[in-house]
Amino acid sequence: MIKEITAGQLDTGQFIAGKVEEIRAAVGSGTAINALSGGVDSSVVTMLGHRALGKSLRTTFIENGLMREGEAQRVAGLFGRLGVPVEVVDAREEFFAALRGVTDPEEKREAITQTFYKKVFGRIVKASGAKHLLQGTILTDVDETVAGIKRQHNVFEQLGINPQEAFGYAILEPLIQLRKDGVRKVGKALGLPSEIFERIPFPGPALAARVIGEATPERIETARQATTIVERILGATSAFQYMAILHQDRVTGMVGGRREFGQQVEIRCWDSLDAREARPTRLPFDVLDSLAREVISGVPGVVSVTYSITTKPPSTIEAV
Amino acid sequence: MIKEITAGQLDTGQFIAGKVEEIRAAVGSGTAINALSGGVDSSVVTMLGHRALGKSLRTTFIENGLMREGEAQRVAGLFGRLGVPVEVVDAREEFFAALRGVTDPEEKREAITQTFYKKVFGRIVKASGAKHLLQGTILTDVDETVAGIKRQHNVFEQLGINPQEAFGYAILEPLIQLRKDGVRKVGKALGLPSEIFERIPFPGPALAARVIGEATPERIETARQATTIVERILGATSAFQYMAILHQDRVTGMVGGRREFGQQVEIRCWDSLDAREARPTRLPFDVLDSLAREVISGVPGVVSVTYSITTKPPSTIEAV
Repeated sequence: MIKEITAGQLDTGQFIAGKVEEIRAAVGSGTAINALSGGVDSSVVTMLGHRALGKSLRTTFIENGLMREGEAQRVAGLFGRLGVPVEVVDAREEFFAALRGVTDPEEKREAITQTFYKKVFGRIVKASGAKHLLQGTILTDVDETVAGIKRQHNVFEQLGINPQEAFGYAILEPLIQLRKDGVRKVGKALGLPSEIFERIPFPGPALAARVIGEATPERIETARQATTIVERILGATSAFQYMAILHQDRVTGMVGGRREFGQQVEIRCWDSLDAREARPTRLPFDVLDSLAREVISGVPGVVSVTYSITTKPPSTIEAV
Repeated sequence: MIKEITAGQLDTGQFIAGKVEEIRAAVGSGTAINALSGGVDSSVVTMLGHRALGKSLRTTFIENGLMREGEAQRVAGLFGRLGVPVEVVDAREEFFAALRGVTDPEEKREAITQTFYKKVFGRIVKASGAKHLLQGTILTDVDETVAGIKRQHNVFEQLGINPQEAFGYAILEPLIQLRKDGVRKVGKALGLPSEIFERIPFPGPALAARVIGEATPERIETARQATTIVERILGATSAFQYMAILHQDRVTGMVGGRREFGQQVEIRCWDSLDAREARPTRLPFDVLDSLAREVISGVPGVVSVTYSITTKPPSTIEAV
């Protein structure tokens, strides 16, 4: 049973000092490794690990080709300015190879997870010689695993490290007693900039969850361009989350006076407290009009834009 | 060169008397046949033909399975009350057989046209012994054929009647000098009820144009149910046209607490003068909310509803 530390109870100074001590004690003169995604949890773990280990921590950012425009540069740059070196690993080809021909949403997620752990990060961990792995698991992840929402995994098995080899490997989860609000408090105390906390949530499978059907490099690029536009235009709203989804269905459009069977982008923008229930934000029609116009002029091949008007439930936040 | 009669020039009493005389003179003691769709043009032709020929006109309504809820009963009932007998021919199986496996929009249109002319109506014409065919061609149809928008057709060839047999057959097009506004004036003068004129336009391929992908009986039924709801809720607006489109893409939804890969319906509602340019009607969000709620509760299998926010161009009025 893990003992929760609520955000109210949390003394960030004491918490950070304690975790830094624990990490140092565990790793000793060895090295540790972690994967940074740019999300809140992995960013806070990176800062804690860096404070504890300095150059004995290897932080990698795996470029899977499925992220927002300029994401690798943004995250590496941000941590670079904080004095934390981040190694960007270009694994785009491996991810797209794993996604080739996969159209089922669950199979897409599985392909991304497998490629991440078994192939790319597993290889990096083994090659690094690091025996300590820092992970940003939080208490909510544990709850969801227990409740059966997320599957329980043996991380080393996922990494393709067999039980014999795994002897001597250790996983460190310094955030496991916290929930999201506690993690944010720790992150702020560690000096992480506000942009880490203010970004709207982005799904694990990244843009692969934002295309219906196969996630080819071309289709991901289309979804990425639409995402950039939607996030720019809706960045000023107080909405809980917003997104652009590339559909697989083709619809008729007129391009240069000719009929063209083109692509459709669906925009979703949600009002919600905790993502359990949500309703479409009542955006002014002038904003909806700008969204449609800019997506159509800025994203080649798109002839139609829709706005989701369904509540959750029965919709979900993401489309696939 | 066909001499246009503008709505302004049109003397409906004189026009009707002249056309009745022409039809009587052409058909003589023979019989004529026509296909009634319930649209303005074919309705006006039916009334003119009935006035000219009485029982020597056979009017058929071909039930293709692709029309609005209760359409055959509505049209036959309406003309029955005007004293015009309409024979409803159930050809649903033939149309669905022709549409099986067809997903390309142009091929769907072609399958419907071929089934209508070559198979169903051709067979009825040949069996009827009628040598005169009344058609609701208007001047705009001729213009579009000349401009290459519609293909030119030899109607008898389309009906599968070969040139030798076609000797003796004649096609009568009493509305060919008029445009839509003139046709409406004539229709009102002939005593057609306002519901014939007030219905929003419906595409030729009917609900087959309102499903993306294959038009199976089940998918057409889904589109039909959504259409009924959308036309009921938006019937009070002054919009130019509105519609429900069933997508082929599946999106994730929550039904009874479980994840379900369900269907999506797109709603379009257009402000337009003449369909050449159009913009989405700025419906109040309360109305959008009702649309989504009622489609989801009234149409099994639908978990997501969107509203088109694109202008025409680059969108078109219909999706396929």
